Amino acid sequence: MPGLMPWKPLFPLFLVLFSVVAQAGDPSDLVDPFVGTLNMGHTYPGATVPFGGVQLSPDTRRLAMFDDQGQYVREVYRYCAGYQYEDSTITGFSHTHFSGTGHSDLGDISLMPVRGAVNLDDPATWQAGFYHENEEAYPGYYAARLEEPACDVELTATTRTGLHRYTYFSGNQGRGRAGVVLDLTANIYDYEGKNVWTFLRVENDTLVTGYRTTSGWARTRTVYFALAFDRPVVDYRIKRLDKTPYNGFYRRFDQENNFPEGAGRQVRAAFFFDLPEEGKLQAKVGLSGVSCAGALANLEAEAPGWDFDGAHRAARQAWNTELDKIQAKFMNNDQASVFYTALYHSMLSPVVYQDVDGSYRGLDQNIHQAEGFTNYTIFSLWDTYRALHPLFNLIQPERNGDMVASMLAHQRQSVHGMLPIWSHHANENWCMIGYHGVPVIADALAKGVPLGGGFTAGDALQACVETARVPYFDGVGEMVKLGYVPDEVSGSSASITLELAYDDWCITEMARSLGRDGVAAEFEARSRNFENIFDPRIGFMRPRDRDGAWRPDFDVMATHGQGFIEGNAWNYSLYVPQDVPRLVELMGGGEKFSAHLDSLFTMQIDDEHIAHTEDITRDGIIGNYVHGNEPGHHIPYLYNWAGRPDRTQERVREIMGSMYGTGPAGLCGNDDAGQMSAWYIFSALGFYPVCPGSAWYALGSPLVSEARVDLGQGKALEVVVHDQGPQNIYVKRVVLNGKEVKGVVVNHADLAAGGKLEFFMGCALKNVSGPGAEG
Amino acid sequence: MPGLMPWKPLFPLFLVLFSVVAQAGDPSDLVDPFVGTLNMGHTYPGATVPFGGVQLSPDTRRLAMFDDQGQYVREVYRYCAGYQYEDSTITGFSHTHFSGTGHSDLGDISLMPVRGAVNLDDPATWQAGFYHENEEAYPGYYAARLEEPACDVELTATTRTGLHRYTYFSGNQGRGRAGVVLDLTANIYDYEGKNVWTFLRVENDTLVTGYRTTSGWARTRTVYFALAFDRPVVDYRIKRLDKTPYNGFYRRFDQENNFPEGAGRQVRAAFFFDLPEEGKLQAKVGLSGVSCAGALANLEAEAPGWDFDGAHRAARQAWNTELDKIQAKFMNNDQASVFYTALYHSMLSPVVYQDVDGSYRGLDQNIHQAEGFTNYTIFSLWDTYRALHPLFNLIQPERNGDMVASMLAHQRQSVHGMLPIWSHHANENWCMIGYHGVPVIADALAKGVPLGGGFTAGDALQACVETARVPYFDGVGEMVKLGYVPDEVSGSSASITLELAYDDWCITEMARSLGRDGVAAEFEARSRNFENIFDPRIGFMRPRDRDGAWRPDFDVMATHGQGFIEGNAWNYSLYVPQDVPRLVELMGGGEKFSAHLDSLFTMQIDDEHIAHTEDITRDGIIGNYVHGNEPGHHIPYLYNWAGRPDRTQERVREIMGSMYGTGPAGLCGNDDAGQMSAWYIFSALGFYPVCPGSAWYALGSPLVSEARVDLGQGKALEVVVHDQGPQNIYVKRVVLNGKEVKGVVVNHADLAAGGKLEFFMGCALKNVSGPGAEG
Repeated sequence: MPGLMPWKPLFPLFLVLFSVVAQAGDPSDLVDPFVGTLNMGHTYPGATVPFGGVQLSPDTRRLAMFDDQGQYVREVYRYCAGYQYEDSTITGFSHTHFSGTGHSDLGDISLMPVRGAVNLDDPATWQAGFYHENEEAYPGYYAARLEEPACDVELTATTRTGLHRYTYFSGNQGRGRAGVVLDLTANIYDYEGKNVWTFLRVENDTLVTGYRTTSGWARTRTVYFALAFDRPVVDYRIKRLDKTPYNGFYRRFDQENNFPEGAGRQVRAAFFFDLPEEGKLQAKVGLSGVSCAGALANLEAEAPGWDFDGAHRAARQAWNTELDKIQAKFMNNDQASVFYTALYHSMLSPVVYQDVDGSYRGLDQNIHQAEGFTNYTIFSLWDTYRALHPLFNLIQPERNGDMVASMLAHQRQSVHGMLPIWSHHANENWCMIGYHGVPVIADALAKGVPLGGGFTAGDALQACVETARVPYFDGVGEMVKLGYVPDEVSGSSASITLELAYDDWCITEMARSLGRDGVAAEFEARSRNFENIFDPRIGFMRPRDRDGAWRPDFDVMATHGQGFIEGNAWNYSLYVPQDVPRLVELMGGGEKFSAHLDSLFTMQIDDEHIAHTEDITRDGIIGNYVHGNEPGHHIPYLYNWAGRPDRTQERVREIMGSMYGTGPAGLCGNDDAGQMSAWYIFSALGFYPVCPGSAWYALGSPLVSEARVDLGQGKALEVVVHDQGPQNIYVKRVVLNGKEVKGVVVNHADLAAGGKLEFFMGCALKNVSGPGAEG
Repeated sequence: MPGLMPWKPLFPLFLVLFSVVAQAGDPSDLVDPFVGTLNMGHTYPGATVPFGGVQLSPDTRRLAMFDDQGQYVREVYRYCAGYQYEDSTITGFSHTHFSGTGHSDLGDISLMPVRGAVNLDDPATWQAGFYHENEEAYPGYYAARLEEPACDVELTATTRTGLHRYTYFSGNQGRGRAGVVLDLTANIYDYEGKNVWTFLRVENDTLVTGYRTTSGWARTRTVYFALAFDRPVVDYRIKRLDKTPYNGFYRRFDQENNFPEGAGRQVRAAFFFDLPEEGKLQAKVGLSGVSCAGALANLEAEAPGWDFDGAHRAARQAWNTELDKIQAKFMNNDQASVFYTALYHSMLSPVVYQDVDGSYRGLDQNIHQAEGFTNYTIFSLWDTYRALHPLFNLIQPERNGDMVASMLAHQRQSVHGMLPIWSHHANENWCMIGYHGVPVIADALAKGVPLGGGFTAGDALQACVETARVPYFDGVGEMVKLGYVPDEVSGSSASITLELAYDDWCITEMARSLGRDGVAAEFEARSRNFENIFDPRIGFMRPRDRDGAWRPDFDVMATHGQGFIEGNAWNYSLYVPQDVPRLVELMGGGEKFSAHLDSLFTMQIDDEHIAHTEDITRDGIIGNYVHGNEPGHHIPYLYNWAGRPDRTQERVREIMGSMYGTGPAGLCGNDDAGQMSAWYIFSALGFYPVCPGSAWYALGSPLVSEARVDLGQGKALEVVVHDQGPQNIYVKRVVLNGKEVKGVVVNHADLAAGGKLEFFMGCALKNVSGPGAEG
């Protein structure tokens, strides 16, 4: 690895002007939860705590997944998080939301304040208009004024509960009795039949319990709840919308009015109250994946009284504590806001998925006890193995050790014996390719992060090996024989071959470190499979059929239908994080490789080439490089191995400046459960985990002026950027713990020991020619 | 109460000939599980253990509950237990069945041996013909030969498991591979949408787990299972019949062939095996209401190996132990068979409903731990409070104490705070009227049976009182004000008024015994409500409206639409078990009352008058008296209070002779979860609990020649019948513990102390005139 050129600061005085101390108040003040709520960021503005199991947020439209003709409604993709900033109507406040995902589900247990009679058959009778000027959101808090009924809504949350405070204008006077609709039919990404079953009990005049099972993206998912009000319900209705033929159960009851139980496929309820003049009503909801009793216990443990303000303060304090783990200064407040919003978004998943007593529903649908770890869910691993979990290994090692434990428990509960692929709420939805739980685990081990739950490195390796040996998963069986996944097996055969080669390299490294030579040899061979699909005649990775023939009529630009998934050959051909030097060699050496990367960033991709890939939008593209989706996130850093770290520095700074911004449109694509944000955080600190599972980070160009990264256990990494400035994007010299860094990477151990990483910046272009990587 | 006339045996020698020692071998040999499987007995012939939670039995037809026009298919009523003797086709062997109920549900987890390819879309491809000559059933064992595939099926059971042994003829040769269909869509009392969800995992090549949730008679019912084979599955298919729009889950898998999980609304599977020449395959299924893990634990605890014969022996031994609790001798073997079959039928419900670790699903759908009791389910209380639970108080006091505990736990889990009405599998189906958990509890307390679960008499009273005060249940609120349930509130207002008056009398008695005078006074007043609906002008009970007006156009013969349920005014007007003397008085005194009863038994009821009442069929009727259904079961004993015990003796013997028989048609109506059988058992012993909740039994005319009733704790009641004979139906004298019984009743305490009850029989008619009851 080449050392960077020595360099002297040119404009130290000028730069001081930009080194605004970003943290005048709470770091929470720098966070804007609306970032990403417009277009395809797929974030939600509602209230949640760090890694909180409840995400209480407004939903702004009800969209069926299929139209009257049974056609998929592409518009629903925009509503993955339930909320779109351009909408002016709120349909309800539900308690579960994905943050930034590329697919949707959830939207459970929707509440909505109402006035007077509502028609429970018709959601239009309770959805309400609102204006953004009457709306605000901070970490752990959301508020909006509903126009009709005139009502202020405030939301906050704990890990397992959501708290609502409603203020109905003019108290109990006029416009009918104040009420709350509980809509158990409301779903994000709805379709006829998504609701499998709902169950409801009015336990007493202030407590309602129940659950609902849905079959959506998660095939079998049950959310149990306990809903409490701070005033007695004086009148209520329960409406079952589905008509099941047998109706005898209720033949002797008026089942709709003040009858304390209801169940069916589609159930809604409305509760009414006599309010005092000031019109205040509070509601709180505990959730559980285990049982109604668990939901109630969670509610009683985390929100025992009616102290909304106290809960809000606690939520904010929890956010401040987490956000303070990186104390960074920036050149301007917008950068600080983007950074801290990214840091906020990086802690919205995975989320805690267990009751306060440690019990949780496992993948096998049985109830398990989390012994020695906290169980987490929402693993969007194709996205998050890249930078999010590596970020956790820096600033959330204990949580990440528990997330690994959660994945290992999942693997033991899996009938396939597989680690999660894309898992949420005790389900595997199999979204995207690879078994990227493996690099998450390998990265934790490589970085010495202790695993939760008493799992050993040997347990972890075993889980990875079992996962990687499932022959019917994505063509693995044929891949083992042929050295690649053949085109006939999967429409993503080339992507799969590439990503599994990387995952298998992670297994190799783990096995080697544990002295498991046989396993290491088995997977090392597999880790080189990328070479088998590189077509040297065209210089791209390319699908092959079972006979070894290259795919004919191959379009290297199209992001769909060419053997790759959510990316084209241009981007995916650069996916060999485990052996960048070999990739450079295959591509003809550093100079050609560098020129190739230049082409990627400067050529144009046509609309038709991205038309069939929801996750790729114009907003997230530079030339033909796609930052708005994951498979290329390491690409800007690859210039380092072509002897052009300056180009890496340019592109990284360009991407930070153009692909991330303030305001609702601040994200260039799905935040992808925090991966997009984690890319920003690493890059802003000046380094990036190009190859998770290894202990090295590639160097980039920091955006911070200085930063203190709390590594836990009293250790901190200091990042000091000398001569930072908008034009000073080039890194002249890097000094780690007083010692000049030779090459383009730094080692985790050197940072994690509590080091000081100094960047010396400059604006002068220099022609760096250096050797490839020894990463 | 008058003493019976002294009497001397006339034909002692002759009678000896009829006193066949019925128990040459096991009492199980006297049981015929086919009794009641033809027509409307609604029993099943399959394998179960006493009070066993698994009832493994063949199902002989798949009937939709509604026809193509959406009309209810009355025929399904015949299939409450899944099997009709006249059928010649078996559709599967499922693991849960009601015994003798008047409504249906269950039929869970159906297995069927098959050969070669089956079309999982079409049950016709695996249903199989059979002949009764190739079928046999004993307590704990069922066997049938299926014609195609040629296969012998044997079934046995433990409390929580069902064991299958299949012998495929000519082993693995010819006619395709041996297999087993697992049909999770099969339901008894099926309708479109009854299946809510099914879930399936092939854990390994010998173990399958899963569950299914149905919304049928029970609104929300889940049965978890673990299915093991004694040979490895070599090939399998899982077929999801429902089409849910989102299909992404499986897009990369061949979901139907050898893929180890499946879920959906309608799922079937087929497993195939390589069998040895002898063609033997064993399967075993554990059930749980808690979880798949619970089902597996139940399976491992109760059926750990592959010892079908051992399990069969244990099941038979368990039956012998229970059946031996009454060692009775009869005049002929048919009577013995009828008696022991009745005793067998009396122990098929309630059934154990908890896992081996004591956990069970409660009415609130939460998982509870049964502390200090065994939890039971299937409470058909409108039927079984009459004689079945009183029978348990004699020969199953510990179980009945646990059943009461189960009901009290249910009451605490009920959002209504109500004891079970008709409850099964953690659900309340609200079938029939009254809150007859109350008399079950009162009877246990009156007879000194200890309650399980640490519940006290005070707890029990409290539960009864809370139940009886729910104002929205069956017009209770208005009843409290008016003194009767008004006609406007319920189509069964008169029946409800009568039965609640009795239930409230039970509460009165309990309260009084506990010194709770206020409660006693409250319910004593309610217990006399029967007087308010007696119309003295016509001499019948009669519905009244809110203004007190008698129902116009009143038909005392019709069993439907006259303010009574499953009975007409003739029968229901005799329903004042708590105060027969007052009833006699209302009806004009003993002589008129006796003549009235004579009319009941001798008049004819038209078909049109019973046409709308499924539970009443011609088979179960004597004149206008309906023995095939419950509300009149005490009526034959009422002659005692009209000074005509001889008439009671005649009718009781007539009913035992004509309404109960051997063979599939041996029951005159639904066995009603054992009530019909319990009537027979008591009557055969010579006494009957006319008023459960009191400690007295009315005397009848015994059918046994002698009997020894094991009361537990080393005590036994001996029934000795002197001069028994087919013509000697009259009781001349009764001696209890050496002391002549004065009157028409005996006291429980005198029997339960381990007494000797002697009947002296004769055939001479005598004109007995005696006073009414002091019961």
